Amino acid sequence: MYTKLRAHIEQIVPLTDDEFALIQSHFHYRKVRKHQYLIQEGDSVVYSYFVLSGLLKLSSVDANDKEHILHFAMDDWWVSDYQAYFTRSRATMSLDCLEDAEVLYISLDDDNKLFAALPKLEHFFWKKSQSSYIASQQRILSLLSTSAKERYEQLLKQYPSLVQRVNKTLIASYLGVSRETLSRLSS
Amino acid sequence: MYTKLRAHIEQIVPLTDDEFALIQSHFHYRKVRKHQYLIQEGDSVVYSYFVLSGLLKLSSVDANDKEHILHFAMDDWWVSDYQAYFTRSRATMSLDCLEDAEVLYISLDDDNKLFAALPKLEHFFWKKSQSSYIASQQRILSLLSTSAKERYEQLLKQYPSLVQRVNKTLIASYLGVSRETLSRLSS
Repeated sequence: MYTKLRAHIEQIVPLTDDEFALIQSHFHYRKVRKHQYLIQEGDSVVYSYFVLSGLLKLSSVDANDKEHILHFAMDDWWVSDYQAYFTRSRATMSLDCLEDAEVLYISLDDDNKLFAALPKLEHFFWKKSQSSYIASQQRILSLLSTSAKERYEQLLKQYPSLVQRVNKTLIASYLGVSRETLSRLSS
Repeated sequence: MYTKLRAHIEQIVPLTDDEFALIQSHFHYRKVRKHQYLIQEGDSVVYSYFVLSGLLKLSSVDANDKEHILHFAMDDWWVSDYQAYFTRSRATMSLDCLEDAEVLYISLDDDNKLFAALPKLEHFFWKKSQSSYIASQQRILSLLSTSAKERYEQLLKQYPSLVQRVNKTLIASYLGVSRETLSRLSS
């Protein structure tokens, strides 16, 4: 299971066996079942997760109990309520499993120890953080500028399998449209 | 003018005078007037900008010639079309001045040289990139979950001076609402 993490990091930063052994010793493995939560709103957020398999969603519930989906997370994604994680504060988001999943996870303290011992890992996480930021900007632009129909088509193109794996209520919540609008678009 | 950059970096990473001299030698200074562009859609994006003073906007124009504002940028902000910058591709966004501005700027090649010479700078940029990503996630959530009225009130609270400095058409474009809706909210 750690092979996947190594291959993922080595896409950006080459590692020796000793370096990867050091990295591996700071991570833990967990299996989670469909419907289980890794983070619940109000929890302390101690861990950042690397998804090995399965499907998760990061979401937030507003004052009217309506759920809004920040993003889905599948193989090779890093996911957490990062605001809470980095500031050691309480979660304002929830992270739960839409399918059985396997994750590796690391605490912020272990993260920091690992960076001190292996500074080149910061380069890796900086690159990942850049990509996440750029993807977020594209999503903002898409929410500002595209119609529900265009957003649905973008999603189909970007994550063709997602539409099969996730029910329409959740897809609607990710796109920021009503369930009825989505039914019209996808019928 | 470089004092500001040093103070800004030292909020996260302490520097010796020699280290800062090295950083400074990789940056350039430029004064830009209101209405001038630092990046125009279709340009090669060579530089990342650190704003010393003034006010800029990063925006994108859709197929119907409607402008959408990713964000405004003022003192101490880093701004560029980062997708184009990091992939050395053509700009899909524009960066222009809403007020006379002063910026420092650095090319990706100089960025990379600087990181090789001073790896702790990657820690600084990783932290900045984290903050930008977290802020983007908040903006996505706000676009998904809040009414135009709530978004306007959030903006007033977060950047009270902005509403005085920027005309209402641009504020409406940032909030993703029509000019008419904004007039109703702000009257």
